[in-house]
Amino acid sequence: MIVILVHVQVKKEFLDAFKEATLENARESLKEPGIARFDVLQQEDDPTKFILVEVYRYHEGTITHKASAHYFKWRETVEKMMAQPRFSVRCYSLFPDDGCWETLPSED
Amino acid sequence: MIVILVHVQVKKEFLDAFKEATLENARESLKEPGIARFDVLQQEDDPTKFILVEVYRYHEGTITHKASAHYFKWRETVEKMMAQPRFSVRCYSLFPDDGCWETLPSED
Repeated sequence: MIVILVHVQVKKEFLDAFKEATLENARESLKEPGIARFDVLQQEDDPTKFILVEVYRYHEGTITHKASAHYFKWRETVEKMMAQPRFSVRCYSLFPDDGCWETLPSED
Repeated sequence: MIVILVHVQVKKEFLDAFKEATLENARESLKEPGIARFDVLQQEDDPTKFILVEVYRYHEGTITHKASAHYFKWRETVEKMMAQPRFSVRCYSLFPDDGCWETLPSED
């Protein structure tokens, strides 16, 4: 799997709006066939910092995602909310096996 | 969920040994009732850098893990392999829902 960790720092006044836009993007992204997980984390000691853990099944999934309507909407919406430019770290997965990364369906 | 990202940089000569010790620790950690995921990632542009994504179901799980025999063995084994002190970032999960984080069983 290809795992991209996106590090974002948000201006305080946009915390709620950023969460709302990001959760919407996460929900839509999970519907993409190329994406196994799209976890959204908020740092405990600094709630203005977020990490998106995006798990792609194959390289093309990263391209399809960036061409999606929901990614475009998210990017435009959060642009003004950034406290500093966001950055990504791209990784290979070593564990667990590729078939073990699915997000389980929500019980809601 | 509580998600702890552990950032490790390893001396080049220990890459294989570090992977072996870390995968063993990850497999054993996944058996702990307090742990839902224990993903091991290797950075694409610098293979000496690793990120462990540890997903705990509750706070006590982080304590139980650090008291486990496999964690103790891992810590002792990798101590000499560090290129610099490792550091952790502790997060809350915002997405997906708590019930969606399980690691699926391996097909092997």
